[in-house]
Amino acid sequence: MVVSTINGTSPLSHSNGTTIPLSTFSRNSFVNVEKGDPVAFRPYWEKVRDECTVEIKGDEWMSYLGDTNNLCWYMVPQMRDAILRLHNVVGNAVTKDKFLVLGTGSSQLFQALLYALSPSESSHRPINVVAAAPYYSEYKDATDILQSRLFQWTGDAALYDKDEPYIEVVTSPNNPDGTLRVPVVNSGVEGKIIYDLAYYWPQYTPITDQLDHDVMVFTFSKCTGHAGSRIGWAFVKDIEVAKKMIRFVQLNSIGVSRESQIRAAKMIGVICDGYKILKSIESDHLFFDYSKRLMKERWEKFKGAIEKSKVFTLTKYPTSYCHFNKDLSEQYPAFAWLKCLEGIKDGESYLEKLKIRTRGGGRFGVDAKYVRVSMIGTEDEFIELCTRLSNAKRE
Amino acid sequence: MVVSTINGTSPLSHSNGTTIPLSTFSRNSFVNVEKGDPVAFRPYWEKVRDECTVEIKGDEWMSYLGDTNNLCWYMVPQMRDAILRLHNVVGNAVTKDKFLVLGTGSSQLFQALLYALSPSESSHRPINVVAAAPYYSEYKDATDILQSRLFQWTGDAALYDKDEPYIEVVTSPNNPDGTLRVPVVNSGVEGKIIYDLAYYWPQYTPITDQLDHDVMVFTFSKCTGHAGSRIGWAFVKDIEVAKKMIRFVQLNSIGVSRESQIRAAKMIGVICDGYKILKSIESDHLFFDYSKRLMKERWEKFKGAIEKSKVFTLTKYPTSYCHFNKDLSEQYPAFAWLKCLEGIKDGESYLEKLKIRTRGGGRFGVDAKYVRVSMIGTEDEFIELCTRLSNAKRE
Repeated sequence: MVVSTINGTSPLSHSNGTTIPLSTFSRNSFVNVEKGDPVAFRPYWEKVRDECTVEIKGDEWMSYLGDTNNLCWYMVPQMRDAILRLHNVVGNAVTKDKFLVLGTGSSQLFQALLYALSPSESSHRPINVVAAAPYYSEYKDATDILQSRLFQWTGDAALYDKDEPYIEVVTSPNNPDGTLRVPVVNSGVEGKIIYDLAYYWPQYTPITDQLDHDVMVFTFSKCTGHAGSRIGWAFVKDIEVAKKMIRFVQLNSIGVSRESQIRAAKMIGVICDGYKILKSIESDHLFFDYSKRLMKERWEKFKGAIEKSKVFTLTKYPTSYCHFNKDLSEQYPAFAWLKCLEGIKDGESYLEKLKIRTRGGGRFGVDAKYVRVSMIGTEDEFIELCTRLSNAKRE
Repeated sequence: MVVSTINGTSPLSHSNGTTIPLSTFSRNSFVNVEKGDPVAFRPYWEKVRDECTVEIKGDEWMSYLGDTNNLCWYMVPQMRDAILRLHNVVGNAVTKDKFLVLGTGSSQLFQALLYALSPSESSHRPINVVAAAPYYSEYKDATDILQSRLFQWTGDAALYDKDEPYIEVVTSPNNPDGTLRVPVVNSGVEGKIIYDLAYYWPQYTPITDQLDHDVMVFTFSKCTGHAGSRIGWAFVKDIEVAKKMIRFVQLNSIGVSRESQIRAAKMIGVICDGYKILKSIESDHLFFDYSKRLMKERWEKFKGAIEKSKVFTLTKYPTSYCHFNKDLSEQYPAFAWLKCLEGIKDGESYLEKLKIRTRGGGRFGVDAKYVRVSMIGTEDEFIELCTRLSNAKRE
């Protein structure tokens, strides 16, 4: 299969190998790679923009109700079918014998799950919520914002040694460091596990297994790049957990935007159609082929810049066989996780001086010598990032 | 101005005054008027369906960010402009010198407000949340679902006599009973007030004042009938309250569906355009004229049915001058609030026997002899409701 990017050339270089000076950054403007806004895949969607167009008429999708025959009554059948089809195409999760719960992004589902997995008797102490450091920077605040008596953030799962019930969040591939994760709590008590699989898609990591856990959470944002749609979903084994989650979403937002569901279903349909008629179309029309190639090219360029700088080290990732791409492949995480070499104690401040805005290790429960850098921003932002990083010198 | 409904005749009767037998209900099927799904206005949107069509292309609205220059960074400028324009046209709220916070429906904003208005020091006791009974049936569960240490449901505002901080929710017109409300707590302590103005639109009540409170919440669902979009907004005087609300929405759902925002902006634009070119178009093309006439016709028919039944009494509403319609008008609430006459202790059970599903007074903090009945369901549901009610006899 000939894999080429949208214009037949790499977005990073001319066919003759020279770098295109795409950057519109001035010396004094910041490169902001602190957030994880997944706009990198926009060029793909520009190419297929017309076949992805959704049209919604004035009288359509007015009701609160999506499908009264489904436990998840606010989910429209098109959305359900699209999600099931996508997992069937990618092969990253077992969907059979599970309940599908839709959320306003995976953030809402995370909170719904904390509620659903907590003991509801008020006699209980709050259940402990843990994740192995470095962990996603928003888990702590999302858990503790309302100071619930049902659950509380307890920090690093690797340090958890209480004989009390707990919920462990396993993010795999992990945000921020891209590593593949398994539960790490070693406790006498049985815990409940939330698998946050936001990045378990072929552009970021080889699909090594069709995962089959009791609670698995996915998000549309990091799969296709449509973060603005706020669509997430969870597969849940236990109907009582699913019911409690749906009750939470009902009280929290009375369901999930119908317009977003219709659009997400359409986009997913276009992706899946591409793989169905695989042989008849160019591979740059295949979303995961395109996006994986983009991530691979970015990572190669990025590694070059880091090597040149001699200031940072990068996480190393294994090579695995991808059942989806049917090849051996490295990982190309959505974030790079940099460790500053000796002499630089605060990576975020150091990079701030180079006019690069990042998120420091402290936010992820680890040392300030680590920083997280988004690899999924715009192209010119990424190119400027690499230029500035390659010029970094030890102080 | 000649006001006529969509086909020039009333949706409820032929021009000769006889009732159209629209009902598709069998004797044994339930008429479900328990929920408040606002689908009554769909015929209007069918009429204007094409001019309201939104088209979203594959590469549009991908980012988490809506407007980085706005405090409410996930709100797109089109949405903000449409909301401000709508209030300018209707004249129901003073929007100047206030912060506009967008939410995934007003439910999310209610929770965001509880968070934002609570004292954040953990030394505090939970702040008391109250509303005058009968109050909206979901406030209690929405407040208490996560057993927060920041706030707790304390019940009927009229009975509140603690010398402790409180938040009073003032829903006006009120859900369930349609009455116009003012704060009722009589306490030595200063309270914070949330005005839930979901029903303060011209089809339900005369617009008597341009309200100018510190915290006012509105929802798209009950304004236009597009409940599936999950769009709500709040006007907030205090920037610190607005900031905390936005932080809540960020952690809860990382913003609000972009597709819903684009569509809501479009629909609101069509409504406002209609009033701008008022003289040149038929009045059945004007949304609030159409929807008010529909509500008026339903209420007249409903009152006839109730009178015939001799089993219930209805709340009485005053007539006021509407600054929007420039006429004297009654109220036509989205819900009817029925009180059963002596001999019927449980209105919900009584109506269940007549195959009418309603929501009983207990859910709203009052006696079971009251029931709430939706007036904004489908036309044939409403007609069947009236038929069954008019046949009701005292046991």
